[in-house]
Amino acid sequence: MKTLIRKPIVLEPDGTFRETDIIIKDDKISHVDLSDDLEVFDHTIDGRGKFVVPGFINAHTHASMTLLRSYADDKELMAWLNEDIWPIEAKMTREDIYWGAALAAVEMIKSGTTAFADMYGPFMDEVAKIVDESGLRGVLSRGLIGVAPDADEKLAENVDLYRDFNGAADGRISVMLGPHAIYTCPPDYLKKVEREATRLNCEIHIHMNETLTEVNDCRKNYGRRPFEIVAESGLFDHGTLAAHCVHLDESEIDIIKRHNIRVAHNPGSNLKLASGICPVTKLMREGITVALGTDGASSNNNLDMLEEIKLAALIHKVDRMDPLAVTAAEAIQMGTENGARAIGLKDVGRIEKGMKADLVLLDMNSAAWTPCFNPASLLVYSGNSSAVDTVIVDGKILMENHELKTLDEEKVLAEAANCARRLTNK
Amino acid sequence: MKTLIRKPIVLEPDGTFRETDIIIKDDKISHVDLSDDLEVFDHTIDGRGKFVVPGFINAHTHASMTLLRSYADDKELMAWLNEDIWPIEAKMTREDIYWGAALAAVEMIKSGTTAFADMYGPFMDEVAKIVDESGLRGVLSRGLIGVAPDADEKLAENVDLYRDFNGAADGRISVMLGPHAIYTCPPDYLKKVEREATRLNCEIHIHMNETLTEVNDCRKNYGRRPFEIVAESGLFDHGTLAAHCVHLDESEIDIIKRHNIRVAHNPGSNLKLASGICPVTKLMREGITVALGTDGASSNNNLDMLEEIKLAALIHKVDRMDPLAVTAAEAIQMGTENGARAIGLKDVGRIEKGMKADLVLLDMNSAAWTPCFNPASLLVYSGNSSAVDTVIVDGKILMENHELKTLDEEKVLAEAANCARRLTNK
Repeated sequence: MKTLIRKPIVLEPDGTFRETDIIIKDDKISHVDLSDDLEVFDHTIDGRGKFVVPGFINAHTHASMTLLRSYADDKELMAWLNEDIWPIEAKMTREDIYWGAALAAVEMIKSGTTAFADMYGPFMDEVAKIVDESGLRGVLSRGLIGVAPDADEKLAENVDLYRDFNGAADGRISVMLGPHAIYTCPPDYLKKVEREATRLNCEIHIHMNETLTEVNDCRKNYGRRPFEIVAESGLFDHGTLAAHCVHLDESEIDIIKRHNIRVAHNPGSNLKLASGICPVTKLMREGITVALGTDGASSNNNLDMLEEIKLAALIHKVDRMDPLAVTAAEAIQMGTENGARAIGLKDVGRIEKGMKADLVLLDMNSAAWTPCFNPASLLVYSGNSSAVDTVIVDGKILMENHELKTLDEEKVLAEAANCARRLTNK
Repeated sequence: MKTLIRKPIVLEPDGTFRETDIIIKDDKISHVDLSDDLEVFDHTIDGRGKFVVPGFINAHTHASMTLLRSYADDKELMAWLNEDIWPIEAKMTREDIYWGAALAAVEMIKSGTTAFADMYGPFMDEVAKIVDESGLRGVLSRGLIGVAPDADEKLAENVDLYRDFNGAADGRISVMLGPHAIYTCPPDYLKKVEREATRLNCEIHIHMNETLTEVNDCRKNYGRRPFEIVAESGLFDHGTLAAHCVHLDESEIDIIKRHNIRVAHNPGSNLKLASGICPVTKLMREGITVALGTDGASSNNNLDMLEEIKLAALIHKVDRMDPLAVTAAEAIQMGTENGARAIGLKDVGRIEKGMKADLVLLDMNSAAWTPCFNPASLLVYSGNSSAVDTVIVDGKILMENHELKTLDEEKVLAEAANCARRLTNK
């Protein structure tokens, strides 16, 4: 299968852009340059007036939780969890997990996301099924609550998920272990998870230092800060994707550096829940990989990576009182190349020969993209995800001219709405 | 002319919502309740699956500056102004002002804005022309730079604008005086403007306390803070729309209260330029009217009010470390009802009988709006302006099913792009 994208504006790995052709052969980009007119293609996409960027990578989310989008907002965190979220989550069936993930997949593709790192459960095999069907890439983990009565079963589920799905769907699925956080996983449980990580040679997806309360509780309970406790368990030796990382001290930044931990920054969720602002510019200066995630749609409340890219480019400027903090180019890189690195994807995140063909075409024919001096700047500071026109993953077209090719959008919206109604009796 | 919107979900003035009918008679809402099936209408809009909210009010912008969108980003403020913005602005012709404002009007209508407060110039009569042609409401002022050699001519232009256009376009245009800011208008010039305001009985649109530098310079130059200096000129006695108000002390908040000054908060611009965060929750607690504006598209970089509503609902939560700061309902109110009050519009900003028919219909049939527990919450935290489907101002349809009715979108985008190219030689 050979596809030509004719004459779009292409975002280069160095942040510049130029008009050129892109040729895709099977799952890979085989050519980024003007093409030979004599070549024959199975499919040609007219790229004129389009801006092509690497697919967005959502480095931290809880896909099936999309069923609870805006079920309860503008409440205190613990009241929201205790009164609204947890009672509903406890009722979720296999079917809910499937349709919740399907709803998430529709939203992700429509807004230009090509890969996501998910932590949820039970029934993560249903999420794997949606990854397979949708054509997306998914890095899945079963959320592990060490203080739960069924903590060991959850860990066994995560191990099964690894055994059954790591490398599945033509390699589009990979699996990590998902110890939820320091306040839900005591040190002895972290040790158990670490033993499985060693046995499987498997990476870790964990929430770290999201709130000040969490850090203070950890110091009270264990006498040290979260990164120190988790480092001691050995978990960080396996390759780690750490979500949030809002409240860090110097010693923890040092642990992040030494263990090459990749950070998933979630600006929308951190703002909405009043968690705080991750010291992104500091982390980047230390050479740490900072990616972006949406978190779950009940604390965001969407899975729109372009909003996270925009927020990342805006909030750190005022937080640092520096108009040059996190430029448009840096924010795009966080949402693409850094994301791929953070969630452990090889050959993804840059538009160049030999990389996987995970691409997004944006339609620049609208007021928000006029005039067009700098499409990268427009993407971050002016456009929104409605410009996402065509989405390609692993060389396969998942959406063309705004129309989904792998999922039945109408059916997914209806079934997800049904699940949400049943779950909440509304 | 009698229009029926059949069975949309309607946002009520108290922030609740319900399914009902809306009837528009000429320029006004005549009925918000189930309609009598026997009535005959000139036009019927199928409102099922749509959410109807008051039109968004952009309380502070520089419309024609949209021509310079993303011309130069991620630069220091003064370098950006000196090297990029001012040299280009100095070259703007009458035609540029017209097409820049036309581009702004297209963008505003497409994203659900029904009224805007503009400060720019020269050739503000061209902006008035676009307000007339587009069907929007515009509150126009000629930006007055007191330190400029032609300061008096500028003031005369603003006076002419008032004489020629205040109350024009069936009352959709009103005019304010636009003294730019304390750092561009010395006290004696403010006095001159005040005399004209008295003579015309005309309100004021001014930038106040946008940056810390501006406040510190004022204290250095005049020994007091900006609000004290402007209050002394008498300008605040005429009714004032004050943009930004980021850096305020208690005495200035007291001046704002006493003079019933309405504040236009510009979160996107204040973040992007690293100006700071306006103490919105404090102002609201004092009963001060806080509206929202986009500022110009070269410091935002769009005119999308829904983004400002979203940012207002997000950034104050983390700034106050309070997840209840600025709820979704409050953010919508800032972008609608408060906006109308801020820019001096009567009978605008709420959906109820007798109010002007300035309405926006949002299409809820998409992933970002599924499931739909609370459309107001979805509007703020999940949706974006691509859901804006139909826009009505003064009872007249400016856009229906995403299609503009008063402006030729294709022509406007092409002409604006031409102007931008010519101005910048790019």
